[in-house]
Amino acid sequence: MSNPKAAMLVIGDEILSGRTQDSNTHYLAGVLTDAGVALKEVRVVSDEAPHIIAAVTALSDAYDYVFTSGGIGPTHDDITADCIAAAFGDTIDIRSDARALLQAHYDRAGQELNDARLRMARIPATATLIDNPVSTAPGFKLRNVHVMAGVPSVFKAMVASVIPTLHGGAPLLSRSLRVQMGEGDLAGPLGTFAQNHPDLSVGSYPFQKDGVYGANLVLRSQDESALDAAFAELRALFA
Amino acid sequence: MSNPKAAMLVIGDEILSGRTQDSNTHYLAGVLTDAGVALKEVRVVSDEAPHIIAAVTALSDAYDYVFTSGGIGPTHDDITADCIAAAFGDTIDIRSDARALLQAHYDRAGQELNDARLRMARIPATATLIDNPVSTAPGFKLRNVHVMAGVPSVFKAMVASVIPTLHGGAPLLSRSLRVQMGEGDLAGPLGTFAQNHPDLSVGSYPFQKDGVYGANLVLRSQDESALDAAFAELRALFA
Repeated sequence: MSNPKAAMLVIGDEILSGRTQDSNTHYLAGVLTDAGVALKEVRVVSDEAPHIIAAVTALSDAYDYVFTSGGIGPTHDDITADCIAAAFGDTIDIRSDARALLQAHYDRAGQELNDARLRMARIPATATLIDNPVSTAPGFKLRNVHVMAGVPSVFKAMVASVIPTLHGGAPLLSRSLRVQMGEGDLAGPLGTFAQNHPDLSVGSYPFQKDGVYGANLVLRSQDESALDAAFAELRALFA
Repeated sequence: MSNPKAAMLVIGDEILSGRTQDSNTHYLAGVLTDAGVALKEVRVVSDEAPHIIAAVTALSDAYDYVFTSGGIGPTHDDITADCIAAAFGDTIDIRSDARALLQAHYDRAGQELNDARLRMARIPATATLIDNPVSTAPGFKLRNVHVMAGVPSVFKAMVASVIPTLHGGAPLLSRSLRVQMGEGDLAGPLGTFAQNHPDLSVGSYPFQKDGVYGANLVLRSQDESALDAAFAELRALFA
């Protein structure tokens, strides 16, 4: 069985300006690989409605699952929820279930649930809420799109809420061999090896450190015994 | 004058599998911002020809400049150069100018310019070479697409070769104010401030550390005196 395919959409001017380095993509990539879901594409777009709507529509059509991060807070530049509703022709307003979560949270904290905070209860009518154990304001799932926060601690908590709901395939396993040899020297035998193992993904990831050239050779497969047999052959090839 | 718009295309299974964290995008974003070029979109795709060709075609049509990283080494999974040629209907073969660079490099190193290394001299016929002072094998520019290496030290060196050739606008300047106040409290006054300054980009980037909630408020503009005046007003607002 082939693994379901996924895409990530990062929403935020702060990533594109170089102010902030995105770490959510790297985190999600590792978690999805372990869950047997293949991350196939990532896009980063700015906080502008036409860009968000176009990207989420394209990715939702092309992949089994889409995950977004960013733009669901209380400030004027948080427009993701409205864009997702627009992309799928859903209505959006303050929803009573999300409002109740926020009311209880701010009552406990002794803070006012003001208009800005109420923005975080704006959820598309047909969406399902995603639990946020860190700071309460929920994410949501609409069709195959999971809308989550950009703050890394909150993003991770929401991903933990979502992962058990996905239908993953067998995890894609990998074996990695570090070779102290320039890619120009290993490319010939590695190419022949890859041709002889068409069912395996064979990657070469070069590094260069303190004047030493080398590469990490990575084999990937869902079939553990085939992977181990091929990896033994690869080690013998570069011993 | 509005700034030219750019997109970044990262090519590599190792990013999508979670094996490697991409750092080239963050580096390029900062350098482009300083050069007055607005990075507007990033995509990450796998080492598969149809995905690379579709992405580079879409981004080349939509933006003034495109920058790619990854997939131009000597191994079987390095297919970027062929995909760029295919995307623009150009022919591709071993080019004598690139071959001469590699021949001199490997002669100096006492290494053989074998078939695998010659792959790195495969350059589309109408492309211009991009200098690589780190490891010689060149990148190239075809139309508005700059094709560069994925290894961060080489990527940075190629970016340094490319930046002086771009026609940037006035740099987008920014001023940042750290506020120890939850976004829910600052969102109201900040929204009014943003409405009163339609020529400014006004962003709020929340953080949460050791139980303290706050946000970095960032103003961006090409007009330094307007920026400074607005920033003084912002500081007074949250003093």
